[in-house]
Amino acid sequence: MKLQVAIDRVSIQKAVQIVELIEGKADIIEVGTSLTKEFGVKALSPIIEAANGTAVLGDIKTCDEGKYEFDLGYKQGFKYLTVMGSSSLGTLQVCAQSAAEHNGLMMIDLLECDEARIEAISGFADAIYCLHTSVDSGATADPVAQVRAFRQRFPQIQHIAIAGGIKQHQLAALAQENIDIVIMGSAITKADDITAACMACRKEMK
Amino acid sequence: MKLQVAIDRVSIQKAVQIVELIEGKADIIEVGTSLTKEFGVKALSPIIEAANGTAVLGDIKTCDEGKYEFDLGYKQGFKYLTVMGSSSLGTLQVCAQSAAEHNGLMMIDLLECDEARIEAISGFADAIYCLHTSVDSGATADPVAQVRAFRQRFPQIQHIAIAGGIKQHQLAALAQENIDIVIMGSAITKADDITAACMACRKEMK
Repeated sequence: MKLQVAIDRVSIQKAVQIVELIEGKADIIEVGTSLTKEFGVKALSPIIEAANGTAVLGDIKTCDEGKYEFDLGYKQGFKYLTVMGSSSLGTLQVCAQSAAEHNGLMMIDLLECDEARIEAISGFADAIYCLHTSVDSGATADPVAQVRAFRQRFPQIQHIAIAGGIKQHQLAALAQENIDIVIMGSAITKADDITAACMACRKEMK
Repeated sequence: MKLQVAIDRVSIQKAVQIVELIEGKADIIEVGTSLTKEFGVKALSPIIEAANGTAVLGDIKTCDEGKYEFDLGYKQGFKYLTVMGSSSLGTLQVCAQSAAEHNGLMMIDLLECDEARIEAISGFADAIYCLHTSVDSGATADPVAQVRAFRQRFPQIQHIAIAGGIKQHQLAALAQENIDIVIMGSAITKADDITAACMACRKEMK
């Protein structure tokens, strides 16, 4: 299980400082939607450079114009990009194609997707499907139960990530569930000692 | 029926030039998603200023963190902001609240929303519901038929916009359908004479 740390609602300068504290310690550094929307993908190079080779995910939440947005993001240096599961199948297909062309990875954000929708978009073998509880709806109560129910319902989906208010004490149990990525946010980035918080989370996952 | 002209996939400088050619002629100038994602909301002030009082819509396609993104957009000077109809009801509610607080308007993008979803989110009396055919799925074949079918199915929805490859020759018929906004893109912004193309579209709507 990889640890993805999401950085949100800070200046680019502050984001760079946070990245310097976690590069090489987090497996994936996420440039959150708030940064992509406030400053734009083209302004994010300093953050990607500060990651110093640690993979960076751009949470660009593509809804349409998939090829344009994904090509832009991969060219900017992102390894992972996100597309909404609620997008059209056509959008998901061109995003998958862009990912393949750029040797990048595609994460499908399942925010608000019902079972029929997930079933309809479950055919992207290389994609990571992100179980995502909306910020506007509060935290995930029991992420392990959520993952198990999802696996039972969609056995055809191989790669799973989970996001939405995950806490450090939930990581040890989650690590047993054979998921690809766990996404943590303010539990690490708002800690007094960001590096220590990141390392403590990693330790739980062993 | 208002004419909204969408500007996409150009530099900020080029966008400003286009705005100068259509301000006071278009009713609403749309800063397209490509501009918001490439350059970020905070970099768009020159475009909003160039609009010279013509209302500007930021097609920010909010999916989550509604209050944060909408507050940001209205403070930046946008009159209209977009939220995805596929967002959680909680997200839509906080966006509506932000719109009311900032004396702004909310457009709900119905991209890929099925009937059950539209029914569930149809209660925002002040919002404009945008019938939107995905760029990745091609143009709207018959926008008048699309509007009529929508009105029949959702009589409770008052304010309607339509977008997705609308052509000049379709405007006269659309103007009879009592919708709020028609959204045109490259048919105007890629014309040799952008001002003339904008005026020609307005003329069709009379």
